[in-house]
Amino acid sequence: MPRTSRRREAPHYPDTADIDLLDVLHALSDPTRMTIVLTLGREPERACGTFPVDVAPSTLSHHFKVLREAGLIRHREEANRRLTTLRAADLEERFPGLLAVVTAAYANGE
Amino acid sequence: MPRTSRRREAPHYPDTADIDLLDVLHALSDPTRMTIVLTLGREPERACGTFPVDVAPSTLSHHFKVLREAGLIRHREEANRRLTTLRAADLEERFPGLLAVVTAAYANGE
Repeated sequence: MPRTSRRREAPHYPDTADIDLLDVLHALSDPTRMTIVLTLGREPERACGTFPVDVAPSTLSHHFKVLREAGLIRHREEANRRLTTLRAADLEERFPGLLAVVTAAYANGE
Repeated sequence: MPRTSRRREAPHYPDTADIDLLDVLHALSDPTRMTIVLTLGREPERACGTFPVDVAPSTLSHHFKVLREAGLIRHREEANRRLTTLRAADLEERFPGLLAVVTAAYANGE
């Protein structure tokens, strides 16, 4: 099965200046992806299988890809684990205040 | 053709308290819909055919529906025209600062 090697291909990360607002809004418009972002807001780095979301691994991979390509998260490999971080500083540089307002709005809205 | 009467059925508008953040983010994640929202931010009320967007009428109807059901806009009929307004006060009440940050981010990002 080529799956693992495919998943581990070098992922694409947009440069901070190329982060697109509409991609960010789209990435945040899904409850699983919003939960991932909120979780990373509270905890700087997490292993990929440890997020409090109830979806199949392939679905989670898809959500990570959407978040990654929108510029919201970054992965790094450490030993056998893939760790995920929020690109909070990059997002703040690109769109000041956006992430704070959106995550506060989500917390208020629930 | 039943099209006109179908389009003129009483549209659904969520109450302010029921406006859902993920629906709002999704609605704003499209360039045509973002343009409609930005245009209404500058000008309080516009007739539906007068937005600076280059899409077919049926596509525009779809975008209005997404914006309406997300709680971003409201229509009212006046004579033969359907006028559209941004629900700016409702959005500010529900998610303080959100619309301002998002529209500023979009203006910066372009």
